[in-house]
Amino acid sequence: MAVYTDVGSEELGRFLDAYDVGRLVSAKGIAEGVENSNFLVITEQGTFILTLYEKRVDPADLPFFLGLMRYLADRGVPCPTPIAARDGQTLRTLCERPAAMVSFLTGVWLRRIEPNHLAALGEALAAMHEAGQGFALTRPNDLSIRGWRRLVTACGARADEVEAGLASELATELAALEAAWPRDLPRGVIHADLFPDNVFFDRERLTGLIDFYFACNDFLAYDLAVCLNAWCFERDLAFNTTKARVLLAAYARRRALSPGEIAALPVLARGAALRFLLTRLFDWLNQVQGALVTPKDPREYLHKLRFHRAVRDVGAYGLP
Amino acid sequence: MAVYTDVGSEELGRFLDAYDVGRLVSAKGIAEGVENSNFLVITEQGTFILTLYEKRVDPADLPFFLGLMRYLADRGVPCPTPIAARDGQTLRTLCERPAAMVSFLTGVWLRRIEPNHLAALGEALAAMHEAGQGFALTRPNDLSIRGWRRLVTACGARADEVEAGLASELATELAALEAAWPRDLPRGVIHADLFPDNVFFDRERLTGLIDFYFACNDFLAYDLAVCLNAWCFERDLAFNTTKARVLLAAYARRRALSPGEIAALPVLARGAALRFLLTRLFDWLNQVQGALVTPKDPREYLHKLRFHRAVRDVGAYGLP
Repeated sequence: MAVYTDVGSEELGRFLDAYDVGRLVSAKGIAEGVENSNFLVITEQGTFILTLYEKRVDPADLPFFLGLMRYLADRGVPCPTPIAARDGQTLRTLCERPAAMVSFLTGVWLRRIEPNHLAALGEALAAMHEAGQGFALTRPNDLSIRGWRRLVTACGARADEVEAGLASELATELAALEAAWPRDLPRGVIHADLFPDNVFFDRERLTGLIDFYFACNDFLAYDLAVCLNAWCFERDLAFNTTKARVLLAAYARRRALSPGEIAALPVLARGAALRFLLTRLFDWLNQVQGALVTPKDPREYLHKLRFHRAVRDVGAYGLP
Repeated sequence: MAVYTDVGSEELGRFLDAYDVGRLVSAKGIAEGVENSNFLVITEQGTFILTLYEKRVDPADLPFFLGLMRYLADRGVPCPTPIAARDGQTLRTLCERPAAMVSFLTGVWLRRIEPNHLAALGEALAAMHEAGQGFALTRPNDLSIRGWRRLVTACGARADEVEAGLASELATELAALEAAWPRDLPRGVIHADLFPDNVFFDRERLTGLIDFYFACNDFLAYDLAVCLNAWCFERDLAFNTTKARVLLAAYARRRALSPGEIAALPVLARGAALRFLLTRLFDWLNQVQGALVTPKDPREYLHKLRFHRAVRDVGAYGLP
């Protein structure tokens, strides 16, 4: 959580002159998102989130991300809507960085997840998947199988610094997933990073999905696999089958899961666990002195990976 | 700029239940203040700033700070007003830390100061000094003469790590100030840290004074000395006499400066420069590995100290 770029109010005022939002009333750097600098900006006309895209975001991807948010918001998905400047553009420049303003969403993210939150999540995820059909731009999932091999190679033998034998376990796991990874599941635009801090609630009501900066085209069911990992383990890393069942049932009520998707859930969940294990492992092994963000412990996802590897069938996720 | 304490939305919601502010709508950790954790909290009834007091604030001082803000706000000073809970208390506990909610102020702080901003500043400072008369609680200025000796001692010979000869220069300076420090100037409640990032503007209009966590009882003119240091040097550290003149004239229009106060300005400005030099030096020499806040370069205030030391009379500050 950090603000990497200091934006002066005078610069911000001039930036806002390009928009039809009235004058600047207040601006606060906010501790949200680990990749970019975010500001809560209040103008005479409303409240907005201003994002400056820092170096971990490829500027070439921004038309996809911003176009997707606009496309989804236009179709009723409660996600940030990019605000167009007077010239019609949503992507601009501030402090020599690509920058965009999006609408502000109410709601807060939850630390303590209850099963009924999973019902709202499943429904919203299915609705997002439906709404994303027809979006014209595409973006490959850099953090799927091919990306994992790159990360396994980049971490190499140093993985054993986290746990003895991990380098070999990762190589075996990757080979198994490469062999078992599905090829023909329903595809579409996925969020790919739908963790609890990216979902806002007002009590039980889901009010917003945010942070589409990993969104891409992939198997729709992979988003469910990410959520099984991010939402269905308790703090002590016990898997909560009830939450999984509620999530999958709510999703399926809105968008039916094919038998192939259901059968693939254990391998997709293993893949999703491996994805977060690998990015956390890489960040852990390559900590930057004085960085503003503390790397997350990769072992949480090693535990989750092993859980899904031991799953024999989708009964483990509460499915009949 | 940092958020030191992670406050879960559930905990925050329960905290807000003690207030008459309606339900939680949104909460964002904000990058404001270096000492405490601050959150912008939106409820059904309005927008607030929630502060969790971290270890650098002495809890015993909080009744003074919160009482002062309430006292000043009640008398028309545009400063945050502490919000009382239903039980009448403004000081509560959240995440095992003292915590208070204050009103949200519009406006932004300026990076580029123009002379007319100094006029607004001078007037607001004088008005604050007038409004503070009669406030019943008192708090000594820990960072005046006695505190400086403590800091000079604490930095010791290591001051020379910043610049050769600095330890000796500090000892000489401190002795000179101890000899020359005024004894009988008008006293009252001062802000003591009125830097540009603690003053909000809407264009030329001053909309808020914030961060009263160094406020104390001391010479009123010492606040002007702090402002001469914090507002009247340009980025290249050239002293802008016009800004100083505008500041002092605007202040004096609201609250007349005595001949003794005017004559003491150079020594007060030296003292104020020494105060920020010493705290920055101490933080520079005692950097915490992995700290969220980058220490400021103490040499900026060494330069300012030398400027004021070379001042022969108040003509240097634009006064006749």
